[in-house]
Amino acid sequence: MSEQIPGWFTEIFQDQGTGFSLKVKSKLHEEQSQYQKIEIFETETFGNLMVLDGCVMLTDRDNFLYHEMMTHPALFTHHAPKKVVIVGGGDCGTLKEVLKHPGVEEAWQVEIDERVTRVAEKYFPDLCTANNDPRANFFFGDGIKWIADAPLESIDLIIVDSTDPVGPAEGLFAVDFYRNCFMALREGGMIVQQTESPLLHTSSIIKKVHDDMRQAGFDGVRTLPFPQPVYPTGWWSCTMAGKGKKLEFFREEDAAERPFVTRYYNAEVHKAALALPEFMKNELDLD
Amino acid sequence: MSEQIPGWFTEIFQDQGTGFSLKVKSKLHEEQSQYQKIEIFETETFGNLMVLDGCVMLTDRDNFLYHEMMTHPALFTHHAPKKVVIVGGGDCGTLKEVLKHPGVEEAWQVEIDERVTRVAEKYFPDLCTANNDPRANFFFGDGIKWIADAPLESIDLIIVDSTDPVGPAEGLFAVDFYRNCFMALREGGMIVQQTESPLLHTSSIIKKVHDDMRQAGFDGVRTLPFPQPVYPTGWWSCTMAGKGKKLEFFREEDAAERPFVTRYYNAEVHKAALALPEFMKNELDLD
Repeated sequence: MSEQIPGWFTEIFQDQGTGFSLKVKSKLHEEQSQYQKIEIFETETFGNLMVLDGCVMLTDRDNFLYHEMMTHPALFTHHAPKKVVIVGGGDCGTLKEVLKHPGVEEAWQVEIDERVTRVAEKYFPDLCTANNDPRANFFFGDGIKWIADAPLESIDLIIVDSTDPVGPAEGLFAVDFYRNCFMALREGGMIVQQTESPLLHTSSIIKKVHDDMRQAGFDGVRTLPFPQPVYPTGWWSCTMAGKGKKLEFFREEDAAERPFVTRYYNAEVHKAALALPEFMKNELDLD
Repeated sequence: MSEQIPGWFTEIFQDQGTGFSLKVKSKLHEEQSQYQKIEIFETETFGNLMVLDGCVMLTDRDNFLYHEMMTHPALFTHHAPKKVVIVGGGDCGTLKEVLKHPGVEEAWQVEIDERVTRVAEKYFPDLCTANNDPRANFFFGDGIKWIADAPLESIDLIIVDSTDPVGPAEGLFAVDFYRNCFMALREGGMIVQQTESPLLHTSSIIKKVHDDMRQAGFDGVRTLPFPQPVYPTGWWSCTMAGKGKKLEFFREEDAAERPFVTRYYNAEVHKAALALPEFMKNELDLD
């Protein structure tokens, strides 16, 4: 669905009745991988754009919002994350943010489609600058199985950086998967997952993730909204939860004195992201 | 620019290289007023949509985000706002939120185009439920002149609820206008203005508003970002400032115990909106 308006890439969200367009200079790449159609466009104003099966994944200009919020709030809430596993995240942007934390000793990117990573290395080199970090490890294959096979209590933080909960990613929004994550996490471990749009999905996807994570044994489930212009409604969220951990506090001083550069995240933004709009509190049955 | 995709309303932001579309059931209304083309569409999923000169103004579904954030943070920061003036705001949504505050004794909506208000009364009745409140006053005409002619130190809060800073609204983003606002405000008075997209406009429009407001004599200029799906990037902002007032505190207890319903705003969201992303702090030269 990319040529409704000549010279523009358009993504139509038929179910939501909305659409988003970016003006395109040229198409840089197109391939059908084993799993999906991968397209890269050069846009007029948002840098390069990655599209999977017609869905906008990321652009150069605004991916920092998503990648910083998928990582730093969780990493600064865990007391000392050493081993971090990213399920999905083939563009490597999440991995890059994780490895900014000097305390992380080992990070795994478990992505089903190796071609996404290879294409990102070519067209999003800024996201891949940490790929040669000796702490970075890559596994290309089924993340659900990888987590199910992981040694018990071996991981500090699991980041579920997936596509929408349809098709291959559907199994990543399910209580069975969360239960396996729970088993694979050390005591005090955490999970964080992208959970779609607060405006569109609070009473459906986000509510279900809360329920499923609790059912899997997690405590202190929290959803953090953040802006993400190229996704539907321009407003997105992640949801995090802890194993034997309420997530009421975070390492605020460490966040304030972080030894790396961020563009969206800071300690105040972290606290702010924990404040839920009134309608979300109501729809999620929070106080 | 409404028929690029048949059956959809599309707004193309040519300068920004982005576009936004809503699926349309029917066009309910179209007229050319003295000032602009006014169109109303019934959308599939966002309720009714108002478009002025091709630009999306508001929809039923998400206008609560904008209207609540244009009003309650300022009204709960002022120590006791009694007289409130809205410049623009012809759809009456801002007026409705203002009049939720029992302490407000007198509110003025100073809108240049009476037709916008008449059309809103017909197609957005939910926004106009306070129009018959005895505290509500309407003036249809030039807001810049109205403010310039206002008695000195007669107003507690001025809310600039305008279109983009081009065409008729350009004079509302200017130091001369802010100086007249400053003169018209009582000591401890405040101004709040919509200031476009944090991602697109921080170093241009938002920075200039900060500089201009300070130059006009205001203190404690603060920008509050918030989501607004139907505007470019889905991320918007308002900027507020005080006359002899630093805006460091707000009436948090009153906000928490507000005697009216909100859908986005609450005391935690208010505090959260004061936390600026790292790039905004940098671009605005804040600490």
